Amino acid sequence: MGENIGRVVENKQIILKGYIEGAPKETDMELKLGKKMKLEAPKGSGAFLVKNLYLSCDPYMRARMRDFHGSYLPPFVPGSVVEGFGVSKVVDSDNPNFKPGDIVSGFTGWEEYSLIYKPEQLRKVQPDTIPLSYYIGLLGFTAYVGYYEICAPKKNEYVFVSAASGAVGQLVGQLAKLHGCYVVGSAGTSQKVDLLKNKLGFDEAFNYKEEPDLDAALKRYFPQGIDIYFENVGGAMLEAVLLNMRVHGRVAICGMVSQHSMTDPQGIRNLFNLITKRVRMQGFLQSDFLHLYPKFLEDVGCLYKQGKITYLEDISEGLESGPSAFAGLFSGKNIGKQVVCVAHE
Amino acid sequence: MGENIGRVVENKQIILKGYIEGAPKETDMELKLGKKMKLEAPKGSGAFLVKNLYLSCDPYMRARMRDFHGSYLPPFVPGSVVEGFGVSKVVDSDNPNFKPGDIVSGFTGWEEYSLIYKPEQLRKVQPDTIPLSYYIGLLGFTAYVGYYEICAPKKNEYVFVSAASGAVGQLVGQLAKLHGCYVVGSAGTSQKVDLLKNKLGFDEAFNYKEEPDLDAALKRYFPQGIDIYFENVGGAMLEAVLLNMRVHGRVAICGMVSQHSMTDPQGIRNLFNLITKRVRMQGFLQSDFLHLYPKFLEDVGCLYKQGKITYLEDISEGLESGPSAFAGLFSGKNIGKQVVCVAHE
Repeated sequence: MGENIGRVVENKQIILKGYIEGAPKETDMELKLGKKMKLEAPKGSGAFLVKNLYLSCDPYMRARMRDFHGSYLPPFVPGSVVEGFGVSKVVDSDNPNFKPGDIVSGFTGWEEYSLIYKPEQLRKVQPDTIPLSYYIGLLGFTAYVGYYEICAPKKNEYVFVSAASGAVGQLVGQLAKLHGCYVVGSAGTSQKVDLLKNKLGFDEAFNYKEEPDLDAALKRYFPQGIDIYFENVGGAMLEAVLLNMRVHGRVAICGMVSQHSMTDPQGIRNLFNLITKRVRMQGFLQSDFLHLYPKFLEDVGCLYKQGKITYLEDISEGLESGPSAFAGLFSGKNIGKQVVCVAHE
Repeated sequence: MGENIGRVVENKQIILKGYIEGAPKETDMELKLGKKMKLEAPKGSGAFLVKNLYLSCDPYMRARMRDFHGSYLPPFVPGSVVEGFGVSKVVDSDNPNFKPGDIVSGFTGWEEYSLIYKPEQLRKVQPDTIPLSYYIGLLGFTAYVGYYEICAPKKNEYVFVSAASGAVGQLVGQLAKLHGCYVVGSAGTSQKVDLLKNKLGFDEAFNYKEEPDLDAALKRYFPQGIDIYFENVGGAMLEAVLLNMRVHGRVAICGMVSQHSMTDPQGIRNLFNLITKRVRMQGFLQSDFLHLYPKFLEDVGCLYKQGKITYLEDISEGLESGPSAFAGLFSGKNIGKQVVCVAHE
């Protein structure tokens, strides 16, 4: 596998400098040389050592950059390495279920090499014709469970997706189209809008930054109203959507990216429409649906191989590019899923 | 039946003077003598004439007092009679399904006599040992469908009810107790708190007006968090509850009384907890569940006759007391269901 087991390396790491307020900045993190590390899995530890290949940049990580313990994941430790989803290659192993050369996907560190003591947080990947990086972030699993399990979609319904060219939105929109729905997406640049319409097959798309009145924009694209809103941004867009929901509509709450950046998030108005339109609004995490992961891999893997779905990635090269790539999520810099390539193999 | 068919009366009516802003005031409505009216159902009309006995004061009626057509019911017409739920007695009928002497429950006018052209908006009531006024507002049907159909309750869950001594809240709390849940209610006076604990069987109750920090109050009553929140008030209480929901909790959105009174409702913060706790928040109207009405009548009627539930009413005497009784809803004047008695029979 090309790695010299037992070699001592200075493991490069991305460190969170301290807890942050507002939107993450590149300078909130820094590249450091870790303590000298022997490339091996300690005997008797049950652990295995991986070389990280691809790291996922996800908005939820922002929530771990503050000193709040009530959430579903604990905060990062300032001065310590950032954690996230990744695709990695096993280099050495003291765990019988993982062998050198195995490709794994799951929780890892933002560093060149990680020693994994919680093997249940990773799954083995069987590489095939799908690019390895796609296995990051569970290959759109959030979109899959959000759409099918939370939105309760029916054919011919009117579906709106915000942050539609992002990691989750792009797949939600394509699944909804394949399912027979009318799909409109919003994004923040004309380039993204063009991709949504011409590459991802959305029926319509618009640049929310060019719409002074989001309510009016939604009424233009959905004169009949919205059955399903896949919510990725929060704030003013959510408020405008609430005014345009149809009776018995569903709102899947996934991102609220815009709210991550605020210590004191603004309130959401227009919730009264939840009653008048009998709307169900539901937050979810893909981790509650892991029993569906094999079905997802089969379904979506198959659609991808058949060329029925497209997956846009924005890959930044090198571990050192991580802080800037992550910060870019919050200003909409990325087009498609933001990935950091640490090593190609 | 004591009514002289064919007699001409000056039908007293409660009129909405004009569209309103803010909380309803007694002076927004007035008592008027209607046009002279012959006490009969016109031949060939298919209509029937009722004498109104009890009228229901419901917060949703506030929404019909403004010039907004996007809701599930059209606005009232200024200068015309107010409409709402009531229990009435048929006086004369040109409809074969309704006979003089029948007691009916459903949509009627805030007036002494109403000519009913939409018989599908009323149902016949079979009077038994349950007081007639209880059949107003579908006898707590909103509480029944909200609790069983929207909250998806399980035994031993932690249930919080706001406006708990109100028409809906009092029954939600009692149903939840009978179902084996731990139930806490909030109300706005110490008298109401006392009723909740000592008459309605809530495990705990508190006066929200005496709690400077609602989040802290909820943490005191629900150290383990809240599984089910039956939302009747909106605003600051909803925000505080969102901070205290348990994983996979449910919020049934029923009232938001506090928001009815505002032309520009304030926003609700803390919705991010919908994701981290995977909470489902759902608005509903009892009218979507009318297929369950017979089952409800049997279930709740039976519980009432067995003395297993208590139903608190606040009855104001005389049609002329209607405007004041209705306005009182919005300052929490009523204890239990607010009813206007127009005539005893």
